[in-house]
Amino acid sequence: MLKGYQSWEFTNRPVILGTATVVGPDEGKGPLGNEFDIVHSDTKLGQDSWEKAEKKMLEEAAKIAIENAKLSKEHIQFYVGGDLMNQIISNSFAVRSMQIPYLGIFGACSTSMEGLAVASLIVDSGFGKHVMAGTCSHNCTAEKQFRYPTEYGSQKPPSAQFTVTGAGAAVIGPEGDGPVVTGATIGRVIDMGIKDPFNMGAAMAPAAVDTLQAHFRDFNREPGDYDLIVTGDLAYVGYNIACDLLEKHNIPIKQTTYNDCGLMIFDRENQNVQAGGSGCGCSATVTYGHILKRIKKGELKRVLVVATGALLSPLSFQQGESIPGIAHAVVIESGGQ
Amino acid sequence: MLKGYQSWEFTNRPVILGTATVVGPDEGKGPLGNEFDIVHSDTKLGQDSWEKAEKKMLEEAAKIAIENAKLSKEHIQFYVGGDLMNQIISNSFAVRSMQIPYLGIFGACSTSMEGLAVASLIVDSGFGKHVMAGTCSHNCTAEKQFRYPTEYGSQKPPSAQFTVTGAGAAVIGPEGDGPVVTGATIGRVIDMGIKDPFNMGAAMAPAAVDTLQAHFRDFNREPGDYDLIVTGDLAYVGYNIACDLLEKHNIPIKQTTYNDCGLMIFDRENQNVQAGGSGCGCSATVTYGHILKRIKKGELKRVLVVATGALLSPLSFQQGESIPGIAHAVVIESGGQ
Repeated sequence: MLKGYQSWEFTNRPVILGTATVVGPDEGKGPLGNEFDIVHSDTKLGQDSWEKAEKKMLEEAAKIAIENAKLSKEHIQFYVGGDLMNQIISNSFAVRSMQIPYLGIFGACSTSMEGLAVASLIVDSGFGKHVMAGTCSHNCTAEKQFRYPTEYGSQKPPSAQFTVTGAGAAVIGPEGDGPVVTGATIGRVIDMGIKDPFNMGAAMAPAAVDTLQAHFRDFNREPGDYDLIVTGDLAYVGYNIACDLLEKHNIPIKQTTYNDCGLMIFDRENQNVQAGGSGCGCSATVTYGHILKRIKKGELKRVLVVATGALLSPLSFQQGESIPGIAHAVVIESGGQ
Repeated sequence: MLKGYQSWEFTNRPVILGTATVVGPDEGKGPLGNEFDIVHSDTKLGQDSWEKAEKKMLEEAAKIAIENAKLSKEHIQFYVGGDLMNQIISNSFAVRSMQIPYLGIFGACSTSMEGLAVASLIVDSGFGKHVMAGTCSHNCTAEKQFRYPTEYGSQKPPSAQFTVTGAGAAVIGPEGDGPVVTGATIGRVIDMGIKDPFNMGAAMAPAAVDTLQAHFRDFNREPGDYDLIVTGDLAYVGYNIACDLLEKHNIPIKQTTYNDCGLMIFDRENQNVQAGGSGCGCSATVTYGHILKRIKKGELKRVLVVATGALLSPLSFQQGESIPGIAHAVVIESGGQ
């Protein structure tokens, strides 16, 4: 049901029955490398384009997520997903092979939690029994679409981020074993006038803070009510801005552990990723591959994942528009009451 | 609640409290020209780019829809919308000015009914009181993004379609006066191998038929249970293919009036639109501007709108991929029991 102004409370506690994560070689070499289901050594996955490789990663993640949920694809009523590619082709073409009714979504890198929120809503409200959420990104497809030809190897400022090559999928159901989704906060579009596409962390940080404020207001909670709060992909620059803004708004973030998926997935000291990771695949693989494992082990009871997205296109940037940000938050808790 | 395999029944009958439609000059000269809230004589709306004009049309439609619903924007909890532009910038930038929590969606031209279905789900299930669905398209922005530079004025085959310049928005609420949304069927991705981006009607027609079959199966209905069935934007070529396929699958479509928004919005004989209209704005403006007026007048009791989308990108086309189609259906009925 609606909770507060812009949040949803899932009182039936839909269960994450199975997830899967598939990543590329750089993510495999990162600190979370052992936590993903598949680590590919080749960014092309044997395909003849990076776009087809991105689609294939998502197909693999979806297939394994369904297996991990001990279901078959005929059990999945709806698939909710999107990605960074123009016209979200990675998802549309992956779903073509799955033949599952499909709700395409887009929230840039916040797509991961937008999908999990909508899938949980559908299950919680009885509008679907088993619903899958999925997303993906690929460093080489994003690079060529949003920045420069990939082979060009352009230099980047330290505030730039490195798009994660990875796909994540989660199957949600009404009952069973697994972590549960208990709430979500849907973000507003926040634009503080940042115009530098090599500093997306700065563009997205105010949106993350706006959604966090809304979340704590709507649920009447504070950071200490969570064992872990992670933002999606603010990376080094955005994370520090978010910390400053949270302090400025008197949100006691130090009550809890606050981290960022863009900082967790790579070793910034030893991997050439500038400020850290980004992309739809960043928060999806860190959440579904790492955080859920910690919840299942009993190390974390209640986690808030705030996926962040920069709502730009190359064309809006060229036309002088600033970069609006958005963030969607999802509450994941250990199963049982 | 879930109905059948891939449909939703809205048992609380969420109400379309207000809608609005804004179109460009060609649509104003078409057969439905008198039914839109605003007809602009200038495709740029006084903006310095067509993209900004597209965004402005959507802002206007959203503003008037809220007024027509006798609400203010603070009453709207969520906005659900998307468009054809890369990274759905028309919607993201329009929502930036509205400051309403935002679920970005994408289903190509089927986005119109995907948005109405999701908005109705949120209201029906109590996850939001007032939710707005919106979408838009612009002939000149779509032309340059998907085909050739707009000024180039390239020749087109008769199977090509003319993207509608228009925006439509609808405000859904739990009670009040107005037509009601009683069901929806979410489509699968269907791909019959069509590779010609100048023949999208042919690519989308099988998806429309697949969704119609699913809809009649899930609701245990037949075409005669509707006073009108419209597809989104199959236009002349796709409409005829759909008629043939419906007959082949023994769906008695002749029980009812079956039309297509892409055929209704333009006068194909006297307007230079090839096979007819297309774009997210096509089914949105025809549904919200024309069909709802006929329902309110009592001329139609129960209508099925099957919005159709071609899930291609210029890049997937260049890489030799075929054009998958999708279609989402929404049932709109006159208010009262």
